[in-house]
Amino acid sequence: MTVDPDSGLLSPVRAGTPAEASTGDEAWVRAMLDAEAALARAQARLGTVPPEAADAITEAAGSARIDVTELARGSRATANPVVGLVKALTAAVGEIAPGAAEYVHRGSTSQDIFDTAMMLVADRTLRPLAADLDATAEALAGLARAHRDTTMAGRTLTAHAVPTTFGLKAAGWRQLVLDAAVRVRRVLDGGLPVSLGGAAGTLAAYVEYARLAGDAQADSYAERLTDAFARETGLAAPVLPWHSLRTPVADLAAALAFTAGALGKLAVDVETLTRTELGEVTEPAADGRGGSSAMPHKRNPVLATLIRSAALQVPVLAAGVTQSMAAEDERSAGVWHAEWQLVRECLRLTGGAAHTAVELARGLNAQPGRMRANLASTHGLIVSERLSAVLAPLLGKAAAKELLGAASQRAVRDDRPLRDVLAELPAVTGVLTPAALDELLDPAGYTGAAGALVDRALGDSALDDSALGDSGPAGAPAVE
Amino acid sequence: MTVDPDSGLLSPVRAGTPAEASTGDEAWVRAMLDAEAALARAQARLGTVPPEAADAITEAAGSARIDVTELARGSRATANPVVGLVKALTAAVGEIAPGAAEYVHRGSTSQDIFDTAMMLVADRTLRPLAADLDATAEALAGLARAHRDTTMAGRTLTAHAVPTTFGLKAAGWRQLVLDAAVRVRRVLDGGLPVSLGGAAGTLAAYVEYARLAGDAQADSYAERLTDAFARETGLAAPVLPWHSLRTPVADLAAALAFTAGALGKLAVDVETLTRTELGEVTEPAADGRGGSSAMPHKRNPVLATLIRSAALQVPVLAAGVTQSMAAEDERSAGVWHAEWQLVRECLRLTGGAAHTAVELARGLNAQPGRMRANLASTHGLIVSERLSAVLAPLLGKAAAKELLGAASQRAVRDDRPLRDVLAELPAVTGVLTPAALDELLDPAGYTGAAGALVDRALGDSALDDSALGDSGPAGAPAVE
Amino acid sequence: MTVDPDSGLLSPVRAGTPAEASTGDEAWVRAMLDAEAALARAQARLGTVPPEAADAITEAAGSARIDVTELARGSRATANPVVGLVKALTAAVGEIAPGAAEYVHRGSTSQDIFDTAMMLVADRTLRPLAADLDATAEALAGLARAHRDTTMAGRTLTAHAVPTTFGLKAAGWRQLVLDAAVRVRRVLDGGLPVSLGGAAGTLAAYVEYARLAGDAQADSYAERLTDAFARETGLAAPVLPWHSLRTPVADLAAALAFTAGALGKLAVDVETLTRTELGEVTEPAADGRGGSSAMPHKRNPVLATLIRSAALQVPVLAAGVTQSMAAEDERSAGVWHAEWQLVRECLRLTGGAAHTAVELARGLNAQPGRMRANLASTHGLIVSERLSAVLAPLLGKAAAKELLGAASQRAVRDDRPLRDVLAELPAVTGVLTPAALDELLDPAGYTGAAGALVDRALGDSALDDSALGDSGPAGAPAVE
Amino acid sequence: MTVDPDSGLLSPVRAGTPAEASTGDEAWVRAMLDAEAALARAQARLGTVPPEAADAITEAAGSARIDVTELARGSRATANPVVGLVKALTAAVGEIAPGAAEYVHRGSTSQDIFDTAMMLVADRTLRPLAADLDATAEALAGLARAHRDTTMAGRTLTAHAVPTTFGLKAAGWRQLVLDAAVRVRRVLDGGLPVSLGGAAGTLAAYVEYARLAGDAQADSYAERLTDAFARETGLAAPVLPWHSLRTPVADLAAALAFTAGALGKLAVDVETLTRTELGEVTEPAADGRGGSSAMPHKRNPVLATLIRSAALQVPVLAAGVTQSMAAEDERSAGVWHAEWQLVRECLRLTGGAAHTAVELARGLNAQPGRMRANLASTHGLIVSERLSAVLAPLLGKAAAKELLGAASQRAVRDDRPLRDVLAELPAVTGVLTPAALDELLDPAGYTGAAGALVDRALGDSALDDSALGDSGPAGAPAVE
Repeated sequence: MTVDPDSGLLSPVRAGTPAEASTGDEAWVRAMLDAEAALARAQARLGTVPPEAADAITEAAGSARIDVTELARGSRATANPVVGLVKALTAAVGEIAPGAAEYVHRGSTSQDIFDTAMMLVADRTLRPLAADLDATAEALAGLARAHRDTTMAGRTLTAHAVPTTFGLKAAGWRQLVLDAAVRVRRVLDGGLPVSLGGAAGTLAAYVEYARLAGDAQADSYAERLTDAFARETGLAAPVLPWHSLRTPVADLAAALAFTAGALGKLAVDVETLTRTELGEVTEPAADGRGGSSAMPHKRNPVLATLIRSAALQVPVLAAGVTQSMAAEDERSAGVWHAEWQLVRECLRLTGGAAHTAVELARGLNAQPGRMRANLASTHGLIVSERLSAVLAPLLGKAAAKELLGAASQRAVRDDRPLRDVLAELPAVTGVLTPAALDELLDPAGYTGAAGALVDRALGDSALDDSALGDSGPAGAPAVE
Repeated sequence: MTVDPDSGLLSPVRAGTPAEASTGDEAWVRAMLDAEAALARAQARLGTVPPEAADAITEAAGSARIDVTELARGSRATANPVVGLVKALTAAVGEIAPGAAEYVHRGSTSQDIFDTAMMLVADRTLRPLAADLDATAEALAGLARAHRDTTMAGRTLTAHAVPTTFGLKAAGWRQLVLDAAVRVRRVLDGGLPVSLGGAAGTLAAYVEYARLAGDAQADSYAERLTDAFARETGLAAPVLPWHSLRTPVADLAAALAFTAGALGKLAVDVETLTRTELGEVTEPAADGRGGSSAMPHKRNPVLATLIRSAALQVPVLAAGVTQSMAAEDERSAGVWHAEWQLVRECLRLTGGAAHTAVELARGLNAQPGRMRANLASTHGLIVSERLSAVLAPLLGKAAAKELLGAASQRAVRDDRPLRDVLAELPAVTGVLTPAALDELLDPAGYTGAAGALVDRALGDSALDDSALGDSGPAGAPAVE
Repeated sequence: MTVDPDSGLLSPVRAGTPAEASTGDEAWVRAMLDAEAALARAQARLGTVPPEAADAITEAAGSARIDVTELARGSRATANPVVGLVKALTAAVGEIAPGAAEYVHRGSTSQDIFDTAMMLVADRTLRPLAADLDATAEALAGLARAHRDTTMAGRTLTAHAVPTTFGLKAAGWRQLVLDAAVRVRRVLDGGLPVSLGGAAGTLAAYVEYARLAGDAQADSYAERLTDAFARETGLAAPVLPWHSLRTPVADLAAALAFTAGALGKLAVDVETLTRTELGEVTEPAADGRGGSSAMPHKRNPVLATLIRSAALQVPVLAAGVTQSMAAEDERSAGVWHAEWQLVRECLRLTGGAAHTAVELARGLNAQPGRMRANLASTHGLIVSERLSAVLAPLLGKAAAKELLGAASQRAVRDDRPLRDVLAELPAVTGVLTPAALDELLDPAGYTGAAGALVDRALGDSALDDSALGDSGPAGAPAVE
Repeated sequence: MTVDPDSGLLSPVRAGTPAEASTGDEAWVRAMLDAEAALARAQARLGTVPPEAADAITEAAGSARIDVTELARGSRATANPVVGLVKALTAAVGEIAPGAAEYVHRGSTSQDIFDTAMMLVADRTLRPLAADLDATAEALAGLARAHRDTTMAGRTLTAHAVPTTFGLKAAGWRQLVLDAAVRVRRVLDGGLPVSLGGAAGTLAAYVEYARLAGDAQADSYAERLTDAFARETGLAAPVLPWHSLRTPVADLAAALAFTAGALGKLAVDVETLTRTELGEVTEPAADGRGGSSAMPHKRNPVLATLIRSAALQVPVLAAGVTQSMAAEDERSAGVWHAEWQLVRECLRLTGGAAHTAVELARGLNAQPGRMRANLASTHGLIVSERLSAVLAPLLGKAAAKELLGAASQRAVRDDRPLRDVLAELPAVTGVLTPAALDELLDPAGYTGAAGALVDRALGDSALDDSALGDSGPAGAPAVE
């Protein structure tokens, strides 16, 4: 049997996606090595590590051959993999430049390296994820625009309610995806900081080595080192060391849970509309996809299925991360450690779901014919709300209600259009012309503000161009 | 037995707090009535409801006597309490102004009213909650400033690591609380929108009534009505109806989970430091508080206990809310309904915890004497990291390590200060004067950047005034 | 506004149900008073409290007027409501028999009373809950029996797969409900113990008072008192005090989460089958139920909606309870306190869901006509699995596959029954008679073991009578 | 970089443990191949597959070389890995015995194979897990017995309450571990069934092939095949196919969450007692374990840390599994798929934690000297409950309370033993001899029933031998 690590065998949603590659064991080790090298370079910038040593550490970190399994097993003795990694890196540096070995991990602590690596992994996963959300939103915008006026049944509590449009539906999915993208970018823009605190969050050893190296301004050294480390990694510089102040991790998990939930809404709607009896959308066809091992005629909504599988997992995983904020002391005995795999799973499930959503959104086929047929299947009752509103002032509220109730029952019982039943009633024909009746009974004429809402959400109306710019949350105010 | 609703009997953390009052059944019914009245007034502004009817509805909504228990039981028939509420309100309006009754809930749907009410309840709960976070942060800032240089043991994985300061600890708690306040305010500033969609999110009946009332610009009516409804309630206007686009609810839950987690960190630290053997802080004394029914000598950290009880619950409750984003159709059959009580509990537990935190932070007593005694309890080993750094270049790395190891063991074995053991070793006295040894062994001299970090976090240094302004997340970059 | 406590305004699933009454504030206070009285009587049995004192305490506990709101607010000072309750009860006893007052809560601790009360509340809620599960299972058995041979589409990944029967569907729902009942009864049968440990789980004060009262066998006193307390309450006697060994609470939460999940399966299936386009079941009609405030023609599946709202909440609430097992010390500062409201919500949501399920199961209407129509809607493709199996040996595997693929496409394209398309193909008519073709294409002829499985699950076949007896889990082995 | 799959880099708690090996990708593929082979053999037993074909399939399944990465990526097209596996297996069989290839996966569906494999993986993981729980319980029994009378402070809400014993503490941990073992074995004993339902749970294709093969008793075929499949796999036979009746999976997750929680209690207590200031236990020493990268003197409680990291994760993961019970249709589109990785993580985290617990329990060192010192640190106040009980009848309740309060304050203020302060008070010496005072103030004399409880829990007393047999839950009744 040949096996790649992190193969996604039980997580098809992320198998082979960018998020799988950027969160695997190799990627994590790579990020830890990058963090060690960046720290040495940052110290070199400030004169506490010789530049040649930083170069050697960078070189060794780039080429070190790490046995991940050995590292993992060794981590049982120290409850984290950094101790073993430092040992391996130190040996690798020693082979290149013996004098540089002592500068590896100088003044540092495992958590500085591990947490910085976690932020690097997050950064490297969130960037393609955000791009995938953009691509999904763009594809959904295309659907919304194309189907701005494609009428379909609006459904509440599983039943037909009043008509809506497929455009409004797609615009809603897009809005949620945009909301997710805003939240992911909020994390990317400053929410992923380096971790630098030393043994207990005071940076004492870093400062001590600076003092020993003759740095006169020990007081400002911590801030200067943090800034230099941030520059070397491309991450942000935090206000305070965050070993046990887990804002960055909690924010990351929350943004991912939101994103998974947003994509989950798209998935469950696609699944519903795909049902054999509804048939209002079909997933994009692809060679072999959606087939069943037993039933040759079936085409399963596999993309939606994969996305939904992620949407169901991420929120509970993220809850475990949020709970980890309540960690005792300067470093918890177990709470910190509980975060790692949960964060990784949140990243790769959501990243995989976003990647899958691009394909789903780009290839989703609407079936306007089936939408029309389904709309008609309740004999016209789907516009009964409108009929009530129109007939009440004409006939009196009580009389209108009674008439409509009786006519509806007859239409259902006799399997006839409500329009035809009403057209036979003198009370109706006395107040409405046949043409007016046709118009009132046309589902396409009772979609309310659906079209205007699509325009507004897409920024296609002159009025709302400004609102579009910030692609605010569904719940955010229009710009006023 | 006399019982008030929502008494908090099993939730002491919120018993009698503002969050209890603003989230109870009465408050929720009040918010639903406010939503109905605001909707009528908004329609009146646009000419689709007579002004006198809106006045009558507002008056009746203000004075209606609602039997909440009847409402709750009646809601089983419709799966929500709005249907019953509308009936009761319509009757009440009818008594005041018979002609106005037909304008109650005109064109509306239960979810418009319920969700708008949920946002009103959230708004009314988050405002005092945010103020409580501010007050907590201010009190913690006072502690951080007062104890900027109060040395204590930094602890990792339950053991002494290196010294830190109580000031840095308090500054860290404050930073988390500020992070929470930022996230709560982000929700308050536009994240709480009115809900307005009508039967299936198209606002069709609202538009139909406008058309019947002669509104010529039906296309823009939905937007105008939404804006007017927002103005009447004081909430934001959403881009799209959000019946099944749950951004506002997910954001609310996430901000509350974050806040509960942030306060939880404060709570677990206070509990740890309160332990009989540590005794480094005591909770504020209050008449009768913290007593035990069985043990007269005990003083329990009850405020921290209450806060922690909330921190443990809110993240899992919030996960249930996030999961509810994946709701099918234009209105889900059950997923929407699962949110309600979860959101309420998130609000009142977190609100109660924030209110409790003010009292905790304001009255928390640090015990510097106990901190010093605990620091000394490891015979000076707490500065062994520094000794290694200093002695290595003086004695050679291997020799320094061996010497320190042996000396440490002897200090522990003989229960003597490490300083005294070292002072007897010629290898040490050859390179360090007694004064230098004293200085190196002084925990207060090895707090690294703790003081500077406190200044920076509090904005007490000239350099960082600008950074303070936005009280960014712990993980956010200083303004550069 | 008039309000009852715990009105269920935001939890219609339990509004007015037995579980609401048995878990409310009054019920909880009642259970705490019952625990105090039972403890006094148990001590009286063993001679450490005078019988008259126990009588007075029992009398006062039965008639005490407790201000629950005051109790709740007072509990903030001690982090639990028992301290205040003891004070109120002591005063009440003092009015009846001044000399008896000192025997209230003698040797006890708050947790003994609170946890015993929690078990009493659980017991009083689980009994009707179990009966409701039985009633649900019985009603579902009736459906399974009545529809043993009612053919309908089996659906996987939202699409028609092969035929199944409504009887098998109902038998499956029933099996899950029986599994839930087994798990609830496992908790009822010994899993709900009294809590008795005294200040820190050693029962020291109880033993001390016995010693002072001259009990010669102090060593066995703890066991005798525990047994007597168990007898007085009707609960079980634990092996060890469980203040911080939370097996009973974790088991309770797990059984409730399972039950909510089991009922959730019923609910989501009913919702799916209720969809306008499917229409294969309808919920029982009841006056006013399922109506919509906006759409007069709608009938919502409100019972399923209510049940599903509980199924979505209980598992995450129960996770919070399970996490509370990891509680430090002899009594945790916050972890214990986090359990209370979570347990209550698990009880009342699940109890409400079970009560609702009885009504749903008893009144659920199957619509065999719609099931047949839907089965036919794929032109016969629903039996393609069978055709493949039959034709492969007759035509050769490859030829059969090609022929079937082409015929299926033609049937769909031309909107004709697959049977008719096949009947025109010489390759088919060469190997199958028209009668054989009719038989093969009849969905009712391809339900596999559905009927036998229903018989087996219901115990209606002679063979399986024995298996029925223990109504084991769906996953449990048949008795062999 | 060389990497093994599933290396545990971010999950040190399971790195290199049996649970890692039995749940990895290779183990999962192995289990799926085992399921396919067992199915063929079961069909051969009943005459629907030629024996030689079953042999060839078994042989090929045993030696097939599967590219797991390819399988994983391929599973995106079908949303599960079985389709690809069947293709690979069919090819492998074809190489051995071309005529046998058509019998691979005959009549089957992906879920039959996947779920059966999941049960095999669970079985193979739970057996060593249960053995590890036994070994942990045995080691804890040894500690409980050895320290039956080792007095230590009982702690509630972080503060000293009254004395307890380390023996009782260890007996409590053991009881929880036994409770977990009971729950795990309950799953092993019949709770892990084969999955066999065919395309939609009716076993139709299996039955059809039997019919075509001339099996006369089609009605009983499903039951016979299920039994044979169970025999071939060593799993149980279910009452009904459980594709969408998820009792076995929910039970598995619940047992694992309970176990993780039980071990978590052990872990948090060990962590607390390990604190520098408490020092009452130390973890077993091992070469290099517990070291810190920065602080040479530290010894971290790494085993407890690892266990706690699992205890924090498993309950939320398990909640995701329980929620998956509410899966629509005969097979859900996404809910089933969400279970897989969650179940795997529950298995390997809990399995790793149990394996770690053996080492922790076997090597845990109690420090009676530190326990005594800590007991004395409150000057004797730890027995104030006892003094109240004894002095009240001697001095009058009010006088006793006042005297004790004043004496306690003096003892604390002057840093003197309470015994000495009391010995100077005539009111005390008038009623208690110095020897009586010594006895009352001795913490070892106020451990209540601790010793008897240890004996009872361990079954070391004659009385309770019977109770021991069933090692019931902490909350279960003694056998009566």
